[in-house]
Amino acid sequence: MTEVSSNKAFGGYITKYKATSESLGGLTTQFNVFVPAHTEGQKFPVLYYLAGLTCNEDTGPWKGNFLSIAAAEGIAMIFPDTSPRGAEIVGEEDSWDIGTGAGFYLDATADKWAKHYRMFSFVTKELPKLVNDLQLPLDMNRQSIMGHSMGGHGALTLFLATLQYRSASAFAPVCNPTKSPWGIKAFSNYLKGGVEEGEKYDASRLLEKAKGRSNVALLIDYGAQDQFLKDGQLLPEALSQAAQNAGFNENQVNIRKQEGYDHSYYFISTFASDHIKYHASHLRA
Amino acid sequence: MTEVSSNKAFGGYITKYKATSESLGGLTTQFNVFVPAHTEGQKFPVLYYLAGLTCNEDTGPWKGNFLSIAAAEGIAMIFPDTSPRGAEIVGEEDSWDIGTGAGFYLDATADKWAKHYRMFSFVTKELPKLVNDLQLPLDMNRQSIMGHSMGGHGALTLFLATLQYRSASAFAPVCNPTKSPWGIKAFSNYLKGGVEEGEKYDASRLLEKAKGRSNVALLIDYGAQDQFLKDGQLLPEALSQAAQNAGFNENQVNIRKQEGYDHSYYFISTFASDHIKYHASHLRA
Repeated sequence: MTEVSSNKAFGGYITKYKATSESLGGLTTQFNVFVPAHTEGQKFPVLYYLAGLTCNEDTGPWKGNFLSIAAAEGIAMIFPDTSPRGAEIVGEEDSWDIGTGAGFYLDATADKWAKHYRMFSFVTKELPKLVNDLQLPLDMNRQSIMGHSMGGHGALTLFLATLQYRSASAFAPVCNPTKSPWGIKAFSNYLKGGVEEGEKYDASRLLEKAKGRSNVALLIDYGAQDQFLKDGQLLPEALSQAAQNAGFNENQVNIRKQEGYDHSYYFISTFASDHIKYHASHLRA
Repeated sequence: MTEVSSNKAFGGYITKYKATSESLGGLTTQFNVFVPAHTEGQKFPVLYYLAGLTCNEDTGPWKGNFLSIAAAEGIAMIFPDTSPRGAEIVGEEDSWDIGTGAGFYLDATADKWAKHYRMFSFVTKELPKLVNDLQLPLDMNRQSIMGHSMGGHGALTLFLATLQYRSASAFAPVCNPTKSPWGIKAFSNYLKGGVEEGEKYDASRLLEKAKGRSNVALLIDYGAQDQFLKDGQLLPEALSQAAQNAGFNENQVNIRKQEGYDHSYYFISTFASDHIKYHASHLRA
């Protein structure tokens, strides 16, 4: 693991690392870690941010308006990339919604992708270990996760498929990918069992199955003017229905429709403060 | 003038316009305008942000962490591009520090550039008129200006060369361009009279000449770890000396060295709040 760059921000530092990843089949991958200013002995809980299609590890820290709030709340942040890069798989660079920049936070099982496209394992298992090895002032026992669009899908599914996060939040997430064009395309390509196998990466299906789980804490914002909402990519109503079916109340699954907002980082940055404070309340508890 | 896009942000809207510009020799240019949420009859003062080399009208609103603070302070913001585009001048696209993305906020006089490269006139005269024509809830009699690097040079020189702004601020500005490699290259290319003619676009020279001017209100932040500072591009000590020579005190010209910070938008976003609040205090006075 090597340090690529380090920039002072809001009294702390955001540092970019490059690592060779076992989960990603030996490819190198980059991620950013933001650590607020700290005093001797202080340790911060960590909040992951998963970016959306075409983005990378820099998009969140550059455009999300997150760091000022994380610094004020005493939260460290970790920003992984959105996919492996440079796997040299045929077709990897041809579409914006499959391959590079479009890992969908799953572990691929289709032969073509299975060696490298394993962002689920990378983010949930390998990345925390890599960060832990850096010996930064972090408390890796307190983790939460958030994301945008494809990364919102990632945040919700990683939260629901594991027990390692205290809370999850999402901006304009793909809530029901087995029913949306992006998700169907991704699952059909990445998974040997196609869309059916994709059920395990579908936040709405996972939420129904989480019935009775005690620590469910989800905050979702989406914009009423989001073109991808109108195109049927996001399907927040499916998640809402799943919450109802599983008996989760609004304190456990809070889905908010924001009038006038779209899919852009202008929308994300507007509600960044709400989301980070939401996680802070769970991480400091 | 046409509307290119409009995004809701922090309760208000940031809208991108495309206009045919007389100052820029008939080229089209784009700019963003952020207007906070408002009630009937309310009017906001305006703050311009001039971006640096290689940037455009989107860099500030995407990466500067400005809009949240502007919204809270009740300040509208205007983000022009950093140069004309598409003038089809030979060599225009060859360097990152001359031509496209590098207008230096001056009016070129060298034959090759004189028709199109007139960002000084565009920003000080034409842009306020274009914005005024939009009939937004703005009070164009209350204007301030800020910028980064080349745009910091722009903010300081436009403030000092005109009387139309109430305050100016800059992140890591080029303070003494007649003595810095970027400035010498720009003036040698754009101005018939070269570096000597460039004296009129040199903030340190202009500040000395502003001796006795009553409304001088400048805030400058630069990072001690800024590589361009180390390379002699910024020269804040020249501006400091000029302020001293002209008898301006720290309330009038406040130059702050920020330990550990560099030239990036991480630095800018950290001090964005200070700058916008500084302008708000002058704009609301």
